Amino acid sequence: MRLRNKPWANDFIAGHSNIVIQNPKEYKGKWNEIFGNNNPIHIEVGTGKGQFVVGMAGANPNINYIGIELSESVIVGALQRAVDAERTNVLLLNENAEDLTDIFAKDEIERVYLNFSDPWPKTRHEKRRLTFKTFLKRYEDILVDEGEIHFKTDNQGLFEYSLQSFSSYGLLLTYVSLDLHKSEYEGNIMTEYEEKFSQKGQRIYRSEVKFLKK
Amino acid sequence: MRLRNKPWANDFIAGHSNIVIQNPKEYKGKWNEIFGNNNPIHIEVGTGKGQFVVGMAGANPNINYIGIELSESVIVGALQRAVDAERTNVLLLNENAEDLTDIFAKDEIERVYLNFSDPWPKTRHEKRRLTFKTFLKRYEDILVDEGEIHFKTDNQGLFEYSLQSFSSYGLLLTYVSLDLHKSEYEGNIMTEYEEKFSQKGQRIYRSEVKFLKK
Repeated sequence: MRLRNKPWANDFIAGHSNIVIQNPKEYKGKWNEIFGNNNPIHIEVGTGKGQFVVGMAGANPNINYIGIELSESVIVGALQRAVDAERTNVLLLNENAEDLTDIFAKDEIERVYLNFSDPWPKTRHEKRRLTFKTFLKRYEDILVDEGEIHFKTDNQGLFEYSLQSFSSYGLLLTYVSLDLHKSEYEGNIMTEYEEKFSQKGQRIYRSEVKFLKK
Repeated sequence: MRLRNKPWANDFIAGHSNIVIQNPKEYKGKWNEIFGNNNPIHIEVGTGKGQFVVGMAGANPNINYIGIELSESVIVGALQRAVDAERTNVLLLNENAEDLTDIFAKDEIERVYLNFSDPWPKTRHEKRRLTFKTFLKRYEDILVDEGEIHFKTDNQGLFEYSLQSFSSYGLLLTYVSLDLHKSEYEGNIMTEYEEKFSQKGQRIYRSEVKFLKK
């Protein structure tokens, strides 16, 4: 059951099926055909209102981006941004991250972005965290060899958990910042949430990990 | 060349050769004989003035501790603490961490502690950091299978570096706290340095990693 608190959302989405792709499982293994080129595809899982994914698409025209967001009432914000940006290298999917392997084929994706994912702080909700091992398996199953996960959050507990989860899964930690906005990292595109919380002086944590060849 | 700015230090150390063991390479593989029991041996590399290692020895009477400190003028502080504590389960070595594998045999040590190690922030000094890969190799060469490194620091850059160095070496991250003193971790024994800097509100970072069976 999805939230339907924006009655116009459904129509708006349906009217832009060139951006919010309907029935995405039909395109498994064929996403480059949809984009019309063979550029690398990066996805953002939990794309929210789309400031990050649309911003990245603008900054990196030779990379194709797909933002995935479960909430229909949230993804309309991303759609509005994508429409305004008039980019051909960004698509959106109103889908559940649990279905990633039904939507993408092995080797189809080069990078997964996770930004300010729901921390699900209670231990009994561990399985819902987007850095839990079953999600890592899904990412592995759609990524190229040595594919990467780029993850940022302001949630200390989620970051600690995720570093351990990555290690336990055998991922190689290739970058970590414990205070991104005071680091030398360049080219950071902020999410809406990140703008808001970093203005309050909240630290942003960021890591890059990659899957090793088996 | 060691600092000799405490002229009495040499005499004090020489007068307590039952605690600061001289010629420790002669005891490689025989440290349990020195302690007179088969309890696990944990070492602290860079033991400073000894508040941690002597405190741990008091808190854990069934574990043997060896504190290693290169600076003679610093280790006298640890020696004074050890003398005052009247513990039989703590020894000190006025030695260089580069010589660990000459002092201890494979499987002789169960755990290595690194506390507030010198960050050596300049890239050209990376090799001197106690979490650089050549040091990790030395720890591996004296630890039991699945032996552990417990590491804490207030230095963000060193902690970031070390997390990556551990991952690159293939170590499993089993614990991480990005704000130890606000965490639920119990039984923390503070170093002198830690007391001083945490009082100023400085965050303490802490991790535990272990070597995997090969």
